[in-house]
Amino acid sequence: MRIDIITVLPELLRSPFEASILKRAIEKGLVEIHMHNLRDFSTNNYNQIDDYQFGGGAGMVMMIEPIDKCITKLKSERNYDEVIYMTPDGETFKQTIANQLSLKENIIILCGHYKGVDQRVRDQFITKEISVGDFVLSGGELAAAIVCDAVIRLLPGVLGDETSALTDSFQDNLLAPPIYTRPSEYKGWEVPEILLSGHTAKIEAWREDEAYKRTERLRPDLLED
Amino acid sequence: MRIDIITVLPELLRSPFEASILKRAIEKGLVEIHMHNLRDFSTNNYNQIDDYQFGGGAGMVMMIEPIDKCITKLKSERNYDEVIYMTPDGETFKQTIANQLSLKENIIILCGHYKGVDQRVRDQFITKEISVGDFVLSGGELAAAIVCDAVIRLLPGVLGDETSALTDSFQDNLLAPPIYTRPSEYKGWEVPEILLSGHTAKIEAWREDEAYKRTERLRPDLLED
Repeated sequence: MRIDIITVLPELLRSPFEASILKRAIEKGLVEIHMHNLRDFSTNNYNQIDDYQFGGGAGMVMMIEPIDKCITKLKSERNYDEVIYMTPDGETFKQTIANQLSLKENIIILCGHYKGVDQRVRDQFITKEISVGDFVLSGGELAAAIVCDAVIRLLPGVLGDETSALTDSFQDNLLAPPIYTRPSEYKGWEVPEILLSGHTAKIEAWREDEAYKRTERLRPDLLED
Repeated sequence: MRIDIITVLPELLRSPFEASILKRAIEKGLVEIHMHNLRDFSTNNYNQIDDYQFGGGAGMVMMIEPIDKCITKLKSERNYDEVIYMTPDGETFKQTIANQLSLKENIIILCGHYKGVDQRVRDQFITKEISVGDFVLSGGELAAAIVCDAVIRLLPGVLGDETSALTDSFQDNLLAPPIYTRPSEYKGWEVPEILLSGHTAKIEAWREDEAYKRTERLRPDLLED
């Protein structure tokens, strides 16, 4: 899989891709991440990529021309399955979208910044608009990092133990059950006895029951889907 | 405002706080961010902070003792308004939570990693559990960065133009209207004429109408609140 990220702040995204699971996935050749600094595609001497909005109002708008140039160059080099724009009014990101994206070959992610991009960019170039939630960030960079993390960890070979991702929250519309590790007693707080019993079948039944109860209590909406 | 982040991967979080708005907010003294490497609070010679889960199953669990030691040390130094745990089964993060957190003095954010923390940590130390959405990440670090970004940009003095945050999506339960910048025509794609008219009142009416229509089309649920 190849992901091209278009951003005005490539330096903001450096460390998330140089640590932990994303780093290992890149080193193993399971994913390629390419950052493109939008300023390199500016058409004037000031490396300008944003301008005031038409009609007045606070906040700068990202111009269409540098984005067009960057996306057009990438598309001339290979085919892309999706050109994604990270924006708070996009489709809310969830596990099923991560699952779908993990099957793609090449995707572009455009990070919004300032007030966002010129609407014509969205109308002409974007195939999918994704929001990571109902809140506003100073840019789409961290949102893009989140999408990359959620997607890349699903690629075969990325997680050390491939059964692990399947027992995570949301993969079966249930939250994960409570988990415990040593010591079995700490300051008087004990681990549920069943988990120390060694009865594998009973433990599995307890976990399913707890997962269901937790979901019912915290996220009953997941059970309605 | 002071935010203490407890993590096994402080290096993953470096660049987001060294760029853009978060960097400027820190430099202006409007927020202090302190990273705490959980391994520094390990009680054995291998800097161990995780262990196998009781009852069996894939994935490691973060142990209670190093987390207890780190939180207890921080609490002995100052009062905290919230001890937040980033977890996919927490309350879904949204703009109103960002608004509330931006009024706090001191908060701790504990980043989950691997399969998550020992349930006793959640029962004993955590005052608020936050999820950034219905998807699974390889750790809570990027989720914590998202919360910090959404909160810090609301602090007075952080954004250059303070009116800007108030016109963002979600602050009034409406998505933002389309925005445009120069050139007014690009490859035949034109900016809506009204925005070039100079009629401020008409432009405001058009924007309100567009924001409402966009919200009705993409996120009718926001209008029901």
